[in-house]
Amino acid sequence: MPPTLLPDERTLHGWFDRDLPPVLTVDPGTTVRFAALDSGWWAGPHGPGRERSPQHTEGSGHALTGPVEVRGARPGDVLAVRIEAVVPGAWGTTYAGVRSTAWNVRLGVEQPAVVPWDIDVAAGTATSTLGTVALRPFLGVMGMPPAEPGRHSTIPPYWHGGNLDCRELVAGSTLYLPIPVEGALFSVGDGHAAQGDGEVSGTAIECPVERADLTLDVQGDLLGRPLTTPVADTPAGWVAMGLGNDLDEAAAEALSAMLDLLGALHGLGRSEAMALASVVVDLRVTQVANQVFGVHALLPRDAVRV
Amino acid sequence: MPPTLLPDERTLHGWFDRDLPPVLTVDPGTTVRFAALDSGWWAGPHGPGRERSPQHTEGSGHALTGPVEVRGARPGDVLAVRIEAVVPGAWGTTYAGVRSTAWNVRLGVEQPAVVPWDIDVAAGTATSTLGTVALRPFLGVMGMPPAEPGRHSTIPPYWHGGNLDCRELVAGSTLYLPIPVEGALFSVGDGHAAQGDGEVSGTAIECPVERADLTLDVQGDLLGRPLTTPVADTPAGWVAMGLGNDLDEAAAEALSAMLDLLGALHGLGRSEAMALASVVVDLRVTQVANQVFGVHALLPRDAVRV
Repeated sequence: MPPTLLPDERTLHGWFDRDLPPVLTVDPGTTVRFAALDSGWWAGPHGPGRERSPQHTEGSGHALTGPVEVRGARPGDVLAVRIEAVVPGAWGTTYAGVRSTAWNVRLGVEQPAVVPWDIDVAAGTATSTLGTVALRPFLGVMGMPPAEPGRHSTIPPYWHGGNLDCRELVAGSTLYLPIPVEGALFSVGDGHAAQGDGEVSGTAIECPVERADLTLDVQGDLLGRPLTTPVADTPAGWVAMGLGNDLDEAAAEALSAMLDLLGALHGLGRSEAMALASVVVDLRVTQVANQVFGVHALLPRDAVRV
Repeated sequence: MPPTLLPDERTLHGWFDRDLPPVLTVDPGTTVRFAALDSGWWAGPHGPGRERSPQHTEGSGHALTGPVEVRGARPGDVLAVRIEAVVPGAWGTTYAGVRSTAWNVRLGVEQPAVVPWDIDVAAGTATSTLGTVALRPFLGVMGMPPAEPGRHSTIPPYWHGGNLDCRELVAGSTLYLPIPVEGALFSVGDGHAAQGDGEVSGTAIECPVERADLTLDVQGDLLGRPLTTPVADTPAGWVAMGLGNDLDEAAAEALSAMLDLLGALHGLGRSEAMALASVVVDLRVTQVANQVFGVHALLPRDAVRV
């Protein structure tokens, strides 16, 4: 069995901090088995008397498990996270309209809705009063602390990962992240049993993670080029993620990273890459509700034969 | 054979204008066969000595075929355009970096690229120096003139259609548009042999349309509700389109229309619809380069069993 981290008093934390001591140190190429609470630190499904895990403290963000130190990882290297498996727990919750944000007001979402889901891993479905949907589990948060000391919120996604909330990061994907700190100090959490592009209410089917097997490796670059933003090779195709203060900025960042990828993969100059992207690349909204906006560019697998 | 409109001196126009006389009048439910030039009015593929169709005049937008009057169509009604077939011509062109826009400069696309494609309808592929891609043909422009008299540009998409550039509008789709003028006065053009979400260079594989069979029908509402923005029932699922001055505005418009759809389809209130959308609806960038920005919300077919 791979080294295993359960969400407990030793591993749980609610922020990114480079000075948080690692709970496990592994060689590059090691598969680590993580389990995680749901993002809200709940000990069980929605209902009367529901309580948070005792490790939850005021000001905590997502309930993260870790951090894991990867031997030899250095700032400027690339952390390759191969997602071997993600198995959700038996329940989840979706929230909408819980806060009176400008987004909710604009959309006329003025009453809170709290939707509990029953998750049937064997059937591959989640069921609530809204109906039954297919599971497509992934980890909303996979990331490392910034180089700057101190506690950093888990809410906004960072160029070095964190709350990426990208629905393409399912099992079979490899996520590539620029490493900001010695040893990488990688943590995960925020199980999503299913989520649409955009995560428009700010929550997916938020669920505990029974088991996520992640192989952590370190490399010097990606496809021969330095990496500065999150990129992934997923079952759907290559994904380049862009973050910004609005969707326009995020879209430009995602597209720019995809043009870099098309340069590396197909040997195209910037203008030819732009022409090809216009024909085959899909720009999709990743998230709209976590302070920072996200757009990802998807190059569907086998979209271009050369 | 259905009534057929070829792109010629009788049918070609480069703007929307309610006072342009219809070239064909049909009863609701009629299938009309359209052919169209490529968006740029070119008489043939890219190459030396290439010339535009003689009907092209300075200030023309896309080369449109029509308009078709639908008997009994009234402002406030819904035009249902059933897309039975779209067959591209034998060639196409993709352009990138042709103008020095802020978008191109930001993305480092500073040299023009003009990419000619050979289209093989039987094989279902388009081939250029960039490689071979699968055909996914649709009409970039399907629309009606605004109620305001005078000539209106074909470049920006309107709430009553026009340059929607939505890649989901392939054969098998029905596009629903609010009707702004008596008789609808529907025109089409802007063949796209393939295009990604976002149409990031501002052009797809721009191609002539050999044949587009469209059934034009009129109804009083959509799913029992008045319609104010473009909505489509496509092979991929229901699509609600949002337009705006930036992607954030377009995203909010698309999501709002999708929450309306979820209300009509699943009987959900606004907050429950928001929760379900967060789990199953995909927000995707439609277009970034036609003055107005577009985002569409996709409810994938069979995403929810109730």
